[in-house]
Amino acid sequence: MHYELKTLRERFTVSYAYPVHFTRRVFAQDNALLASVLGGRAGASPLRVLMVVDAGVSGATPGLMRQIDAYFNARAQRITLADKPLIVPGGENAKNGWGNVREIMTRAGRARLDRHSVIAAVGGGSVLDMAGFAASLIHRGVRFVRLPTTALAQNDAGVGVKNGMNEGGAKNFIGTFAPPFAVINDFAFLKTLPQGDWISGVAEAFKVAIIADKPFFNTLCALAPKLKKRNQAAMEQVVYRTAQLHLRHIATSGDPFESGSARPLDFGHWAAHRLEVMSGFTLTHGQAVAIGIALDSTYALFKRMIPEDEHAAILSGLADCGLPIYSPLLERPELLDGLEQFREHLGGRLCVTLPAPLGAKREVHTMDTRLIRQAIARLR
Amino acid sequence: MHYELKTLRERFTVSYAYPVHFTRRVFAQDNALLASVLGGRAGASPLRVLMVVDAGVSGATPGLMRQIDAYFNARAQRITLADKPLIVPGGENAKNGWGNVREIMTRAGRARLDRHSVIAAVGGGSVLDMAGFAASLIHRGVRFVRLPTTALAQNDAGVGVKNGMNEGGAKNFIGTFAPPFAVINDFAFLKTLPQGDWISGVAEAFKVAIIADKPFFNTLCALAPKLKKRNQAAMEQVVYRTAQLHLRHIATSGDPFESGSARPLDFGHWAAHRLEVMSGFTLTHGQAVAIGIALDSTYALFKRMIPEDEHAAILSGLADCGLPIYSPLLERPELLDGLEQFREHLGGRLCVTLPAPLGAKREVHTMDTRLIRQAIARLR
Repeated sequence: MHYELKTLRERFTVSYAYPVHFTRRVFAQDNALLASVLGGRAGASPLRVLMVVDAGVSGATPGLMRQIDAYFNARAQRITLADKPLIVPGGENAKNGWGNVREIMTRAGRARLDRHSVIAAVGGGSVLDMAGFAASLIHRGVRFVRLPTTALAQNDAGVGVKNGMNEGGAKNFIGTFAPPFAVINDFAFLKTLPQGDWISGVAEAFKVAIIADKPFFNTLCALAPKLKKRNQAAMEQVVYRTAQLHLRHIATSGDPFESGSARPLDFGHWAAHRLEVMSGFTLTHGQAVAIGIALDSTYALFKRMIPEDEHAAILSGLADCGLPIYSPLLERPELLDGLEQFREHLGGRLCVTLPAPLGAKREVHTMDTRLIRQAIARLR
Repeated sequence: MHYELKTLRERFTVSYAYPVHFTRRVFAQDNALLASVLGGRAGASPLRVLMVVDAGVSGATPGLMRQIDAYFNARAQRITLADKPLIVPGGENAKNGWGNVREIMTRAGRARLDRHSVIAAVGGGSVLDMAGFAASLIHRGVRFVRLPTTALAQNDAGVGVKNGMNEGGAKNFIGTFAPPFAVINDFAFLKTLPQGDWISGVAEAFKVAIIADKPFFNTLCALAPKLKKRNQAAMEQVVYRTAQLHLRHIATSGDPFESGSARPLDFGHWAAHRLEVMSGFTLTHGQAVAIGIALDSTYALFKRMIPEDEHAAILSGLADCGLPIYSPLLERPELLDGLEQFREHLGGRLCVTLPAPLGAKREVHTMDTRLIRQAIARLR
């Protein structure tokens, strides 16, 4: 007889809420948004903020570090820099190794941050991931404010509830679900992006439009020439709508922390993650996603889930933006390992989201490798 | 004009649920509980389980490792060890440094664990904290089953929603809120505990009884001589009730992840955490908590929050169990740093829980250091 005492059962819910703001020139002296988001109060001791800044951003934005200093100095009664801003190299490498994470921990300890203090990060998705990971661990989570600077981070990675670090050679092998305290999307940063990073953000817009919003897909196709030519108003419109769809999905999916096996926001991503790694990260995430979308859309065509005209519209929409729809890496047999790695991350059954038809989605649990190869041949 | 686009607001809730089971000899061949908790299914590929075992437990339980092997071998269709069990030194040192955490990550990657795989840890609170921390990060959280082996872990640390690691010399400076997949309290492990660890678990029972359950406090005082003499039935009763009260608090406090500043389950802990560090961890957590309870109860007496007879009952109840109620470390001025460190962890206002009267609690936001010193003098 092994059990004598009744099993206890614990059950509770936790509520999360955060705003995603949009602005321009967030560190301009007369822009009150950041200070109001941080929320320090006159009368109390000033709110301590540890800033982390992507070196790519500080390099491309002359005067940024002085502006940040001046911004805090002008509001020293309410907010204060807990330490000199930590400048870290951006790009995928920010997510490799523990050096930056431990540096943030060391500074947080030295500055005696508490759970109501703020770590604020300015940068691309990788720097936000790394800093958000550190922030989620310190005191089991200090407040984290994201200031995404790339189109991709502003409309996708930077507005969601996840972070990720590369470990043991696997992309995003570790991480936490950690909703931010707030997100501030500053459109002015988009102007400083190299062309590749500018257009990469559009790939995630296509992703979410193709599976969830056909009118937005049509808008994207219409805007494609403008987006390619760096029309700022067009990009702002795309970023806003994509962020909105991304947030709506998180709030309404019923599984914001992915306890099941479905991951509809990862349409096109099984191949994309694999391609990024296979390319040694010379393909950007956005480029890899565009290729992944092209591949899975072609697969959906062969499966008669979308008609020829929708398929053609997807490929030409991506191409009109200057996004790639093919890479020779697709031909390498190890591409298909991406399917198992994709399944492995969430566990349970394989779950791949496909458009069915454009503007709607269907989950499939097997992928026919012969059809994948045919889709690659078609794209070639 | 800085804002043109409406702020987006994200809002969602996440539900958590987990069972706390009670059993004896969990790895006995005929005990089906663990296998049923793990939940592998015949027909599917066997569920992969990475085991982490406290060296103190494997040392004190001859044949344990063979039993674990045999348990899995007998159910190889449904569950399988993903790797040889990882044996790690127990005690506070398990929470210092990243070596064990990264070893678990490496093994999880090598064994291709996915988010539906299980990491299961057998041990005291420190090993559970370390392994739970690692599990919460891998794939942003693989299933984690705790098998606490000490009284303290079975009734307190091991049944809650937190883990913690020491970093930069500060106890639990980092960690995550990560509800376990399940907890299995195996009472047979309690028999192997050294006397100090046996009785340490009773300190957390006093803690929760004093602020939440006067009848249970009276039971504890009545059982004290039996608890001191290692009466197994008395200890099982105490562990069960304490675990139940702990879980009830988490589920009903309205703030399971401590986003506010209150931490009622940490009655007596501001001094306890400080004393542990000041003693170089020669005081166990339970001993330090007993002293912290004695101190804050005496403070509550001076504040007329509890009467003399209740105060006397608290001190004699602790002492009758063989728990300390005084340490010379209390006299050292740096003890009082513990108040600020306690505040800092959660941020916001200082929030110390005191009994008012016994069986109920009140939060106070300042502590009178002169009265603290008088309380220490009284305890001396």
